[in-house]
Amino acid sequence: MNPSIALTIQSTTHRDTEGIRAISVAVGVFDAVELATVDELLEAYFTHGPAASGYHFLTAHTHGEVAGFACYGPRALTSGTYDLYWIVTNPTYGRSGVARALVEAVMNVLRSQAGRLLIAETSGRTEYAKTRAFYVRAGFVAEAVIPDFYSPGDDLYLFVKRA
Amino acid sequence: MNPSIALTIQSTTHRDTEGIRAISVAVGVFDAVELATVDELLEAYFTHGPAASGYHFLTAHTHGEVAGFACYGPRALTSGTYDLYWIVTNPTYGRSGVARALVEAVMNVLRSQAGRLLIAETSGRTEYAKTRAFYVRAGFVAEAVIPDFYSPGDDLYLFVKRA
Repeated sequence: MNPSIALTIQSTTHRDTEGIRAISVAVGVFDAVELATVDELLEAYFTHGPAASGYHFLTAHTHGEVAGFACYGPRALTSGTYDLYWIVTNPTYGRSGVARALVEAVMNVLRSQAGRLLIAETSGRTEYAKTRAFYVRAGFVAEAVIPDFYSPGDDLYLFVKRA
Repeated sequence: MNPSIALTIQSTTHRDTEGIRAISVAVGVFDAVELATVDELLEAYFTHGPAASGYHFLTAHTHGEVAGFACYGPRALTSGTYDLYWIVTNPTYGRSGVARALVEAVMNVLRSQAGRLLIAETSGRTEYAKTRAFYVRAGFVAEAVIPDFYSPGDDLYLFVKRA
């Protein structure tokens, strides 16, 4: 799928920091601890690089603005399996294909590094129905559901996209 | 199931350190990095305690000797879900019910802390057939299998025991 806006997607640089913070706040789903974690992992990625930190960030830009970002990294003990930690779209560009373009960009990087599986874990709660539907549209398959994993009534959905 | 040898199971203390190291080497399945990790997590547990470190160790003793140990801790982002990281039996006491007694001891601690799920992740490789059979006997259910998760041909089995 071609995004309906012109995007460039590259490894995140320091210049994107403010934009990433701004859209992380704007999407309105992250609490203070989660926002601090985004900052912390970005800092680890800038300071130590993706290999040593285990976190790689990609930023999507349109017209010089941060349209979205993705954060992913290798799963411990595996060879070629990666976790997709966050994929966040600037609400201004919602439903323009930014998130799907970011998933494809992540997959392209993985393929170039003998990556095989990209895992996205999410909740079975009603609030996450759109998130789950997005993963399905983006080519992930819910290969496992663990009832009550997060808390009673809150299931784990383990989505897998294969390279 | 009652173990066929007399066991006492308690939170691990410094006195168990040498015994834990000795049986971790004796079982012959851990490489140098994994052995170092056992030491590292034990040290974190001793220094910061189970709550702050996220790692709790239980030791099974028989006749003053370390018969086995278990290491587990809460899964991030969940309420009441725990990972079973290691369960190791002194080969001298193999098949005496030590490992099952350790699983039950872990479950008893979990129940006392509103724990609900204990997760054991293992490989689908032939070498792990006995491990998988053990989990089933100990009351775990393989609630998910993710093909090729660890590497091509090496599947993830996600075993869950519910409190």
